[in-house]
Amino acid sequence: MKQPERPKTAAVLVIGDEILSGRTIDTNSGEIARFLALLGIDLKEIRVVGDREPAIIAALNALRAAYDFVFSTGGIGPTHDDITADAVARAFGVAIEEHPEALALLRARYPGTELNESRRRMARIPLGATLVHNAVSAAPGFHIGNLFVLAGVPAVMRAMLEAIAPLLPQGRPLAAVTLAAETAEGRIAVGLAAIQKAHPEAAIGSYPYFREGGFGVQLVVRGRDGKAVEAAAEAIETMLEEAGIGAARLPEQAGRGDHESG
Amino acid sequence: MKQPERPKTAAVLVIGDEILSGRTIDTNSGEIARFLALLGIDLKEIRVVGDREPAIIAALNALRAAYDFVFSTGGIGPTHDDITADAVARAFGVAIEEHPEALALLRARYPGTELNESRRRMARIPLGATLVHNAVSAAPGFHIGNLFVLAGVPAVMRAMLEAIAPLLPQGRPLAAVTLAAETAEGRIAVGLAAIQKAHPEAAIGSYPYFREGGFGVQLVVRGRDGKAVEAAAEAIETMLEEAGIGAARLPEQAGRGDHESG
Repeated sequence: MKQPERPKTAAVLVIGDEILSGRTIDTNSGEIARFLALLGIDLKEIRVVGDREPAIIAALNALRAAYDFVFSTGGIGPTHDDITADAVARAFGVAIEEHPEALALLRARYPGTELNESRRRMARIPLGATLVHNAVSAAPGFHIGNLFVLAGVPAVMRAMLEAIAPLLPQGRPLAAVTLAAETAEGRIAVGLAAIQKAHPEAAIGSYPYFREGGFGVQLVVRGRDGKAVEAAAEAIETMLEEAGIGAARLPEQAGRGDHESG
Repeated sequence: MKQPERPKTAAVLVIGDEILSGRTIDTNSGEIARFLALLGIDLKEIRVVGDREPAIIAALNALRAAYDFVFSTGGIGPTHDDITADAVARAFGVAIEEHPEALALLRARYPGTELNESRRRMARIPLGATLVHNAVSAAPGFHIGNLFVLAGVPAVMRAMLEAIAPLLPQGRPLAAVTLAAETAEGRIAVGLAAIQKAHPEAAIGSYPYFREGGFGVQLVVRGRDGKAVEAAAEAIETMLEEAGIGAARLPEQAGRGDHESG
Protein backbone atom coordinates (compact mmCIF):
# COMPACT_ATOMS: atom_id res chain seq x y z
CA MET A 1 0.00 0.00 0.00
CA LYS A 2 1.37 3.39 -0.95
CA GLN A 3 1.95 5.60 2.05
CA PRO A 4 0.25 8.98 1.52
CA GLU A 5 2.87 11.72 1.30
CA ARG A 6 3.34 13.84 4.40
CA PRO A 7 1.83 17.29 3.78
CA LYS A 8 4.45 20.02 3.35
CA THR A 9 4.81 22.43 6.26
CA ALA A 10 5.48 26.15 6.34
CA ALA A 11 6.10 29.13 8.60
CA VAL A 12 5.60 32.87 8.09
CA LEU A 13 8.07 35.43 9.45
CA VAL A 14 6.72 38.99 9.60
CA ILE A 15 9.50 41.56 10.01
CA GLY A 16 8.73 45.04 11.29
CA ASP A 17 8.70 47.26 14.38
CA GLU A 18 5.43 48.78 13.18
CA ILE A 19 3.55 45.53 13.88
CA LEU A 20 5.07 45.08 17.36
CA SER A 21 4.24 48.67 18.33
CA GLY A 22 0.60 48.02 17.46
CA ARG A 23 0.70 50.87 14.94
CA THR A 24 0.13 48.64 11.92
CA ILE A 25 -2.19 45.64 11.67
CA ASP A 26 -0.50 42.65 10.05
CA THR A 27 -2.73 41.42 7.25
CA ASN A 28 0.06 39.65 5.33
CA SER A 29 0.26 36.56 7.53
CA GLY A 30 -3.48 35.92 7.12
CA GLU A 31 -3.15 36.41 3.36
CA ILE A 32 -0.30 33.87 3.18
CA ALA A 33 -2.26 31.48 5.44
CA ARG A 34 -5.19 31.44 3.01
CA PHE A 35 -2.82 31.13 0.03
CA LEU A 36 -1.12 28.09 1.61
CA ALA A 37 -4.43 26.48 2.61
CA LEU A 38 -5.49 26.52 -1.05
CA LEU A 39 -2.20 24.86 -2.03
CA GLY A 40 -2.58 22.19 0.66
CA ILE A 41 0.57 23.31 2.52
CA ASP A 42 0.24 23.23 6.34
CA LEU A 43 1.07 26.58 7.95
CA LYS A 44 2.46 25.59 11.36
CA GLU A 45 3.76 28.82 12.85
CA ILE A 46 3.78 32.59 12.42
CA ARG A 47 6.41 34.79 14.04
CA VAL A 48 6.67 38.56 14.16
CA VAL A 49 10.03 40.14 15.03
CA GLY A 50 11.31 43.72 14.90
CA ASP A 51 13.83 45.42 12.61
CA ARG A 52 16.89 44.06 14.42
CA GLU A 53 19.35 41.76 12.67
CA PRO A 54 20.01 39.28 15.52
CA ALA A 55 16.27 38.71 16.04
CA ILE A 56 15.67 38.23 12.30
CA ILE A 57 18.62 35.82 11.91
CA ALA A 58 17.59 33.73 14.93
CA ALA A 59 14.01 33.44 13.71
CA LEU A 60 15.05 32.65 10.11
CA ASN A 61 17.40 29.89 11.20
CA ALA A 62 14.92 28.33 13.62
CA LEU A 63 12.06 28.35 11.10
CA ARG A 64 13.97 27.19 8.01
CA ALA A 65 15.31 24.23 9.98
CA ALA A 66 11.89 23.27 11.35
CA TYR A 67 9.62 23.61 8.30
CA ASP A 68 9.65 22.80 4.58
CA PHE A 69 9.09 26.42 3.53
CA VAL A 70 9.47 29.83 5.14
CA PHE A 71 7.83 33.02 3.83
CA SER A 72 9.09 36.35 5.16
CA THR A 73 7.41 39.70 4.62
CA GLY A 74 8.80 43.18 5.16
CA GLY A 75 12.12 44.97 5.34
CA ILE A 76 13.18 44.92 1.66
CA GLY A 77 12.64 48.61 0.80
CA PRO A 78 15.25 51.37 0.32
CA THR A 79 15.40 52.87 3.82
CA HIS A 80 17.84 52.33 6.69
CA ASP A 81 15.33 50.16 8.59
CA ASP A 82 15.11 47.69 5.66
CA ILE A 83 17.65 45.07 6.72
CA THR A 84 16.02 41.78 5.69
CA ALA A 85 18.34 41.00 2.74
CA ASP A 86 21.46 41.48 4.89
CA ALA A 87 19.99 39.35 7.68
CA VAL A 88 19.13 36.58 5.18
CA ALA A 89 22.69 36.62 3.77
CA ARG A 90 24.11 36.23 7.30
CA ALA A 91 21.60 33.53 8.23
CA PHE A 92 22.55 31.53 5.13
CA GLY A 93 26.25 32.36 5.44
CA VAL A 94 26.51 33.82 1.94
CA ALA A 95 27.72 37.17 0.58
CA ILE A 96 25.35 39.90 -0.53
CA GLU A 97 25.92 41.75 -3.81
CA GLU A 98 24.16 43.95 -6.31
CA HIS A 99 22.18 41.60 -8.54
CA PRO A 100 22.58 42.68 -12.21
CA GLU A 101 18.99 41.84 -13.14
CA ALA A 102 17.58 43.60 -10.07
CA LEU A 103 19.69 46.66 -10.88
CA ALA A 104 18.38 46.62 -14.45
CA LEU A 105 14.77 46.42 -13.20
CA LEU A 106 15.30 49.40 -10.90
CA ARG A 107 17.07 51.40 -13.63
CA ALA A 108 14.15 50.77 -15.97
CA ARG A 109 11.78 52.00 -13.27
CA TYR A 110 13.60 55.33 -12.87
CA PRO A 111 14.69 56.18 -16.43
CA GLY A 112 16.80 59.22 -17.22
CA THR A 113 18.29 59.53 -13.73
CA GLU A 114 21.17 57.83 -12.02
CA LEU A 115 19.85 55.48 -9.31
CA ASN A 116 20.56 56.97 -5.91
CA GLU A 117 22.37 55.05 -3.21
CA SER A 118 19.22 54.04 -1.36
CA ARG A 119 17.41 52.76 -4.45
CA ARG A 120 20.51 50.77 -5.38
CA ARG A 121 20.21 49.18 -1.93
CA MET A 122 17.10 47.36 -3.20
CA ALA A 123 19.26 45.57 -5.80
CA ARG A 124 21.43 43.97 -3.08
CA ILE A 125 20.51 40.27 -3.06
CA PRO A 126 22.16 37.37 -1.20
CA LEU A 127 24.44 35.33 -3.48
CA GLY A 128 22.71 32.28 -4.89
CA ALA A 129 19.20 33.71 -4.52
CA THR A 130 16.69 33.85 -7.38
CA LEU A 131 14.62 37.01 -7.94
CA VAL A 132 10.85 37.08 -7.35
CA HIS A 133 9.33 39.57 -9.76
CA ASN A 134 6.07 41.35 -9.27
CA ALA A 135 3.83 43.51 -11.41
CA VAL A 136 3.28 46.26 -8.82
CA SER A 137 6.77 47.42 -7.81
CA ALA A 138 10.16 47.29 -9.56
CA ALA A 139 12.02 46.11 -6.45
CA PRO A 140 12.07 42.31 -6.50
CA GLY A 141 11.73 39.80 -3.70
CA PHE A 142 13.90 36.69 -3.83
CA HIS A 143 14.11 33.08 -2.78
CA ILE A 144 17.06 31.12 -1.49
CA GLY A 145 16.98 27.57 -0.17
CA ASN A 146 13.53 27.03 1.33
CA LEU A 147 13.01 30.73 2.10
CA PHE A 148 10.85 33.15 0.10
CA VAL A 149 11.52 36.82 0.90
CA LEU A 150 8.51 38.98 0.07
CA ALA A 151 7.66 42.68 0.39
CA GLY A 152 5.77 44.10 3.38
CA VAL A 153 3.39 46.35 1.42
CA PRO A 154 0.33 44.09 1.03
CA ALA A 155 -0.38 44.82 -2.65
CA VAL A 156 3.24 44.04 -3.54
CA MET A 157 3.29 40.99 -1.27
CA ARG A 158 0.18 39.60 -2.97
CA ALA A 159 1.71 40.11 -6.42
CA MET A 160 4.83 38.24 -5.27
CA LEU A 161 2.70 35.37 -3.88
CA GLU A 162 1.11 34.99 -7.31
CA ALA A 163 4.59 34.94 -8.85
CA ILE A 164 5.88 32.13 -6.60
CA ALA A 165 2.75 29.95 -6.71
CA PRO A 166 4.07 27.86 -9.64
CA LEU A 167 7.26 27.11 -7.67
CA LEU A 168 5.37 25.49 -4.78
CA PRO A 169 4.12 21.91 -4.65
CA GLN A 170 0.40 21.47 -5.09
CA GLY A 171 -0.74 19.32 -2.16
CA ARG A 172 -4.18 18.08 -1.36
CA PRO A 173 -6.08 21.15 -0.14
CA LEU A 174 -7.97 20.87 3.10
CA ALA A 175 -11.63 20.05 2.91
CA ALA A 176 -13.68 22.05 5.41
CA VAL A 177 -17.27 22.26 6.58
CA THR A 178 -18.42 25.12 8.81
CA LEU A 179 -21.54 24.83 10.96
CA ALA A 180 -23.12 27.66 12.92
CA ALA A 181 -24.90 26.42 16.06
CA GLU A 182 -27.14 28.52 18.29
CA THR A 183 -25.78 27.30 21.60
CA ALA A 184 -23.13 27.83 24.24
CA GLU A 185 -19.89 25.85 23.81
CA GLY A 186 -20.29 24.26 27.23
CA ARG A 187 -23.58 22.57 26.23
CA ILE A 188 -22.04 20.63 23.35
CA ALA A 189 -18.41 20.14 24.39
CA VAL A 190 -18.86 16.61 25.77
CA GLY A 191 -20.60 15.42 22.62
CA LEU A 192 -18.07 17.17 20.40
CA ALA A 193 -15.16 15.51 22.20
CA ALA A 194 -16.77 12.10 21.62
CA ILE A 195 -17.26 12.86 17.92
CA GLN A 196 -13.66 14.05 17.61
CA LYS A 197 -12.50 10.79 19.18
CA ALA A 198 -14.61 8.74 16.77
CA HIS A 199 -13.37 10.75 13.74
CA PRO A 200 -9.61 11.13 14.17
CA GLU A 201 -9.11 11.84 10.44
CA ALA A 202 -10.95 15.16 10.79
CA ALA A 203 -9.98 18.07 13.08
CA ILE A 204 -12.94 19.72 14.77
CA GLY A 205 -12.49 23.33 15.90
CA SER A 206 -14.99 25.14 18.10
CA TYR A 207 -15.12 28.95 17.99
CA PRO A 208 -17.61 30.74 20.22
CA TYR A 209 -18.85 34.19 19.26
CA PHE A 210 -20.69 36.90 21.13
CA ARG A 211 -22.66 39.49 19.20
CA GLU A 212 -25.23 42.06 20.16
CA GLY A 213 -27.92 39.78 18.77
CA GLY A 214 -26.84 36.84 20.94
CA PHE A 215 -24.18 34.18 21.01
CA GLY A 216 -23.34 30.92 19.33
CA VAL A 217 -20.56 28.63 18.18
CA GLN A 218 -18.97 28.10 14.80
CA LEU A 219 -17.84 24.53 14.40
CA VAL A 220 -15.24 23.94 11.70
CA VAL A 221 -14.39 20.42 10.55
CA ARG A 222 -11.17 20.18 8.52
CA GLY A 223 -9.12 17.44 6.98
CA ARG A 224 -7.46 16.19 3.82
CA ASP A 225 -10.01 13.38 3.40
CA GLY A 226 -13.26 14.96 2.21
CA LYS A 227 -15.31 11.88 3.14
CA ALA A 228 -13.96 11.83 6.70
CA VAL A 229 -14.74 15.54 7.03
CA GLU A 230 -18.29 15.01 5.77
CA ALA A 231 -18.85 12.05 8.14
CA ALA A 232 -17.69 14.07 11.15
CA ALA A 233 -19.81 17.06 10.10
CA GLU A 234 -22.88 14.83 9.78
CA ALA A 235 -22.23 13.32 13.23
CA ILE A 236 -22.18 16.86 14.66
CA GLU A 237 -25.40 17.77 12.85
CA THR A 238 -27.09 14.67 14.28
CA MET A 239 -25.90 15.50 17.79
CA LEU A 240 -27.16 19.09 17.51
CA GLU A 241 -30.53 17.96 16.13
CA GLU A 242 -30.99 15.42 18.94
CA ALA A 243 -30.24 18.15 21.47
CA GLY A 244 -32.80 20.45 19.82
CA ILE A 245 -30.12 23.01 18.90
CA GLY A 246 -30.62 25.05 15.71
CA ALA A 247 -27.70 24.76 13.28
CA ALA A 248 -26.84 25.64 9.70
CA ARG A 249 -23.99 24.97 7.30
CA LEU A 250 -22.20 28.11 6.20
CA PRO A 251 -20.94 28.50 2.65
CA GLU A 252 -17.19 27.77 2.83
CA GLN A 253 -16.04 31.14 1.53
CA ALA A 254 -17.95 32.94 4.28
CA GLY A 255 -15.91 31.09 6.86
CA ARG A 256 -12.61 32.46 5.55
CA GLY A 257 -10.96 35.48 7.02
CA ASP A 258 -13.62 36.21 9.63
CA HIS A 259 -12.60 38.52 12.41
CA GLU A 260 -12.21 36.84 15.77
CA SER A 261 -15.10 38.87 17.10
CA GLY A 262 -17.26 36.83 14.71
CA MET B 1 24.71 59.19 37.49
CA LYS B 2 21.71 56.92 37.79
CA GLN B 3 21.50 54.37 34.99
CA PRO B 4 18.03 54.52 33.39
CA GLU B 5 16.19 51.26 33.99
CA ARG B 6 16.09 48.83 31.07
CA PRO B 7 12.56 48.81 29.60
CA LYS B 8 10.67 45.60 30.33
CA THR B 9 10.21 43.24 27.38
CA ALA B 10 7.30 41.04 26.38
CA ALA B 11 6.12 38.45 23.88
CA VAL B 12 2.63 37.41 22.75
CA LEU B 13 1.75 33.78 22.03
CA VAL B 14 -1.44 33.29 20.02
CA ILE B 15 -2.75 29.72 20.22
CA GLY B 16 -5.18 28.43 17.62
CA ASP B 17 -5.46 26.42 14.41
CA GLU B 18 -8.08 28.91 13.17
CA ILE B 19 -5.44 31.64 12.78
CA LEU B 20 -2.96 29.36 10.95
CA SER B 21 -5.64 28.16 8.53
CA GLY B 22 -6.37 31.78 7.60
CA ARG B 23 -9.99 31.34 8.66
CA THR B 24 -9.78 33.81 11.53
CA ILE B 25 -7.93 37.12 11.57
CA ASP B 26 -5.88 37.57 14.75
CA THR B 27 -6.78 40.92 16.26
CA ASN B 28 -5.66 40.04 19.80
CA SER B 29 -1.93 40.45 19.23
CA GLY B 30 -2.44 43.99 17.88
CA GLU B 31 -4.67 44.80 20.84
CA ILE B 32 -2.01 43.59 23.29
CA ALA B 33 0.69 45.47 21.34
CA ARG B 34 -1.17 48.78 21.79
CA PHE B 35 -1.90 47.97 25.46
CA LEU B 36 1.82 47.32 26.12
CA ALA B 37 2.92 50.44 24.20
CA LEU B 38 0.80 52.57 26.53
CA LEU B 39 2.41 50.88 29.55
CA GLY B 40 5.92 51.43 28.17
CA ILE B 41 6.62 47.69 27.89
CA ASP B 42 8.56 46.67 24.72
CA LEU B 43 6.78 43.97 22.73
CA LYS B 44 9.65 42.07 21.06
CA GLU B 45 7.99 39.07 19.46
CA ILE B 46 4.65 37.55 18.49
CA ARG B 47 4.21 33.86 17.79
CA VAL B 48 1.21 31.95 16.54
CA VAL B 49 1.08 28.17 17.02
CA GLY B 50 -1.67 25.58 16.54
CA ASP B 51 -3.67 23.56 19.05
CA ARG B 52 -0.92 20.97 19.63
CA GLU B 53 0.66 20.52 23.05
CA PRO B 54 4.32 20.06 21.98
CA ALA B 55 4.21 23.25 19.88
CA ILE B 56 2.59 25.25 22.68
CA ILE B 57 5.04 23.97 25.32
CA ALA B 58 8.09 24.69 23.14
CA ALA B 59 6.90 28.23 22.37
CA LEU B 60 5.97 28.95 26.02
CA ASN B 61 9.34 27.81 27.31
CA ALA B 62 11.31 29.72 24.66
CA LEU B 63 9.38 32.95 25.20
CA ARG B 64 9.20 32.94 29.01
CA ALA B 65 12.97 32.43 29.15
CA ALA B 66 13.70 35.23 26.67
CA TYR B 67 11.36 38.02 27.82
CA ASP B 68 10.15 39.63 31.05
CA PHE B 69 6.48 38.88 30.33
CA VAL B 70 4.53 36.53 28.08
CA PHE B 71 0.86 36.95 27.19
CA SER B 72 -0.96 34.01 25.63
CA THR B 73 -4.41 34.13 24.06
CA GLY B 74 -6.71 31.27 23.15
CA GLY B 75 -7.36 27.68 24.08
CA ILE B 76 -8.95 28.09 27.54
CA GLY B 77 -12.56 27.24 26.69
CA PRO B 78 -14.54 24.05 27.42
CA THR B 79 -13.97 22.06 24.21
CA HIS B 80 -11.54 19.27 23.38
CA ASP B 81 -9.30 21.65 21.36
CA ASP B 82 -8.79 23.91 24.41
CA ILE B 83 -5.51 22.57 25.76
CA THR B 84 -3.65 25.69 26.88
CA ALA B 85 -3.97 25.13 30.65
CA ASP B 86 -2.59 21.59 30.37
CA ALA B 87 0.27 22.76 28.15
CA VAL B 88 1.13 25.52 30.65
CA ALA B 89 1.16 23.05 33.54
CA ARG B 90 3.59 20.82 31.61
CA ALA B 91 5.76 23.75 30.53
CA PHE B 92 6.07 24.90 34.16
CA GLY B 93 6.36 21.35 35.51
CA VAL B 94 3.42 21.70 37.89
CA ALA B 95 0.24 19.71 38.42
CA ILE B 96 -3.15 20.89 37.16
CA GLU B 97 -6.23 20.73 39.40
CA GLU B 98 -9.72 22.11 39.73
CA HIS B 99 -9.34 25.54 41.31
CA PRO B 100 -12.03 26.00 44.03
CA GLU B 101 -12.59 29.67 43.25
CA ALA B 102 -12.81 29.03 39.50
CA LEU B 103 -15.30 26.24 40.16
CA ALA B 104 -17.39 28.57 42.33
CA LEU B 105 -17.39 31.22 39.57
CA LEU B 106 -18.57 28.71 36.99
CA ARG B 107 -21.25 27.30 39.37
CA ALA B 108 -22.55 30.82 39.95
CA ARG B 109 -22.76 31.35 36.20
CA TYR B 110 -24.92 28.25 35.65
CA PRO B 111 -27.16 28.20 38.73
CA GLY B 112 -29.65 25.42 39.37
CA THR B 113 -27.81 22.83 37.27
CA GLU B 114 -24.89 20.57 37.95
CA LEU B 115 -21.84 21.74 35.94
CA ASN B 116 -21.20 19.33 33.10
CA GLU B 117 -17.82 17.73 32.52
CA SER B 118 -16.75 20.17 29.83
CA ARG B 119 -17.65 23.29 31.80
CA ARG B 120 -15.78 21.87 34.81
CA ARG B 121 -12.76 21.64 32.49
CA MET B 122 -12.58 25.44 32.54
CA ALA B 123 -11.90 25.32 36.30
CA ARG B 124 -8.72 23.25 35.80
CA ILE B 125 -5.84 25.62 36.57
CA PRO B 126 -2.10 24.86 36.95
CA LEU B 127 -1.05 24.64 40.59
CA GLY B 128 0.39 27.89 41.89
CA ALA B 129 -1.39 30.07 39.32
CA THR B 130 -3.54 33.07 40.27
CA LEU B 131 -6.90 33.62 38.56
CA VAL B 132 -7.51 36.52 36.18
CA HIS B 133 -11.13 37.55 36.46
CA ASN B 134 -13.11 39.33 33.81
CA ALA B 135 -16.48 40.98 33.62
CA VAL B 136 -17.60 39.35 30.35
CA SER B 137 -17.27 35.61 30.92
CA ALA B 138 -17.29 33.43 34.07
CA ALA B 139 -14.32 31.32 32.97
CA PRO B 140 -11.17 32.94 34.33
CA GLY B 141 -7.73 33.36 32.81
CA PHE B 142 -4.72 32.95 35.06
CA HIS B 143 -1.14 33.97 35.59
CA ILE B 144 1.81 31.92 36.73
CA GLY B 145 5.41 33.09 36.88
CA ASN B 146 5.86 35.68 34.13
CA LEU B 147 3.05 34.23 31.99
CA PHE B 148 -0.47 35.66 31.62
CA VAL B 149 -2.96 33.25 30.08
CA LEU B 150 -5.86 35.10 28.45
CA ALA B 151 -8.97 34.10 26.50
CA GLY B 152 -9.06 34.02 22.70
CA VAL B 153 -12.47 35.69 22.27
CA PRO B 154 -11.48 39.36 21.80
CA ALA B 155 -14.11 40.89 24.11
CA VAL B 156 -13.10 38.52 26.92
CA MET B 157 -9.38 39.02 26.18
CA ARG B 158 -9.79 42.81 26.43
CA ALA B 159 -11.62 42.50 29.76
CA MET B 160 -8.77 40.33 31.08
CA LEU B 161 -6.17 42.87 29.90
CA GLU B 162 -7.96 45.53 31.93
CA ALA B 163 -7.90 43.19 34.92
CA ILE B 164 -4.15 42.56 34.77
CA ALA B 165 -3.07 46.16 34.02
CA PRO B 166 -2.53 46.98 37.73
CA LEU B 167 -0.19 43.96 38.03
CA LEU B 168 2.20 45.24 35.36
CA PRO B 169 4.97 47.80 35.82
CA GLN B 170 4.27 51.25 34.45
CA GLY B 171 7.29 52.15 32.30
CA ARG B 172 7.95 55.26 30.31
CA PRO B 173 5.59 55.10 27.34
CA LEU B 174 7.02 55.69 23.90
CA ALA B 175 6.79 59.17 22.46
CA ALA B 176 5.94 59.15 18.76
CA VAL B 177 5.56 61.65 15.94
CA THR B 178 4.06 60.59 12.60
CA LEU B 179 4.69 62.57 9.43
CA ALA B 180 2.97 61.99 6.09
CA ALA B 181 5.22 62.91 3.15
CA GLU B 182 4.10 63.09 -0.48
CA THR B 183 7.09 61.34 -1.97
CA ALA B 184 8.57 57.97 -2.87
CA GLU B 185 10.72 56.30 -0.22
CA GLY B 186 13.68 56.13 -2.57
CA ARG B 187 13.88 59.94 -2.87
CA ILE B 188 14.37 60.50 0.86
CA ALA B 189 16.09 57.34 2.07
CA VAL B 190 19.64 58.76 1.95
CA GLY B 191 18.65 61.83 3.96
CA LEU B 192 16.64 59.72 6.40
CA ALA B 193 19.57 57.40 7.03
CA ALA B 194 21.77 60.42 7.84
CA ILE B 195 19.14 61.80 10.25
CA GLN B 196 18.80 58.37 11.89
CA LYS B 197 22.58 58.29 12.38
CA ALA B 198 22.57 61.77 13.94
CA HIS B 199 19.64 60.93 16.26
CA PRO B 200 20.38 57.48 17.69
CA GLU B 201 17.99 58.03 20.64
CA ALA B 202 15.01 57.99 18.27
CA ALA B 203 13.96 55.15 15.97
CA ILE B 204 12.79 56.30 12.55
CA GLY B 205 10.46 53.98 10.64
CA SER B 206 9.50 54.51 7.02
CA TYR B 207 6.24 53.00 5.72
CA PRO B 208 5.33 53.51 2.07
CA TYR B 209 1.71 53.38 1.01
CA PHE B 210 -0.03 53.09 -2.34
CA ARG B 211 -3.60 54.27 -2.72
CA GLU B 212 -5.82 54.97 -5.68
CA GLY B 213 -5.24 58.69 -5.13
CA GLY B 214 -1.45 58.31 -5.27
CA PHE B 215 1.40 57.23 -3.07
CA GLY B 216 3.47 58.52 -0.21
CA VAL B 217 5.41 57.61 2.90
CA GLN B 218 4.48 57.69 6.56
CA LEU B 219 7.50 58.42 8.70
CA VAL B 220 7.20 57.45 12.34
CA VAL B 221 9.73 58.67 14.90
CA ARG B 222 9.62 56.80 18.21
CA GLY B 223 11.59 56.80 21.43
CA ARG B 224 11.38 57.05 25.20
CA ASP B 225 12.94 60.53 25.22
CA GLY B 226 10.31 62.99 23.95
CA LYS B 227 12.89 65.71 23.23
CA ALA B 228 15.03 63.36 21.13
CA VAL B 229 11.94 62.28 19.18
CA GLU B 230 10.94 65.91 18.56
CA ALA B 231 14.48 66.84 17.44
CA ALA B 232 14.59 63.95 14.94
CA ALA B 233 11.10 64.80 13.66
CA GLU B 234 12.12 68.43 13.11
CA ALA B 235 15.26 67.36 11.26
CA ILE B 236 13.07 65.27 8.94
CA GLU B 237 10.67 68.18 8.41
CA THR B 238 13.61 70.45 7.50
CA MET B 239 14.97 67.87 5.05
CA LEU B 240 11.55 67.46 3.37
CA GLU B 241 11.04 71.24 3.14
CA GLU B 242 14.48 71.75 1.59
CA ALA B 243 13.67 69.06 -0.98
CA GLY B 244 10.35 70.76 -1.76
CA ILE B 245 8.34 67.73 -0.57
CA GLY B 246 4.92 68.37 0.98
CA ALA B 247 4.57 66.91 4.47
CA ALA B 248 2.21 67.09 7.45
CA ARG B 249 2.19 65.83 11.01
CA LEU B 250 -0.58 63.36 11.70
CA PRO B 251 -2.43 63.35 15.01
CA GLU B 252 -0.88 60.50 17.02
CA GLN B 253 -4.10 58.49 17.53
CA ALA B 254 -4.65 58.30 13.78
CA GLY B 255 -1.35 56.51 13.42
CA ARG B 256 -2.39 53.63 15.66
CA GLY B 257 -3.81 50.42 14.29
CA ASP B 258 -3.66 51.44 10.63
CA HIS B 259 -3.91 48.64 8.15
CA GLU B 260 -0.70 47.88 6.32
CA SER B 261 -2.23 49.07 3.10
CA GLY B 262 -2.27 52.52 4.66
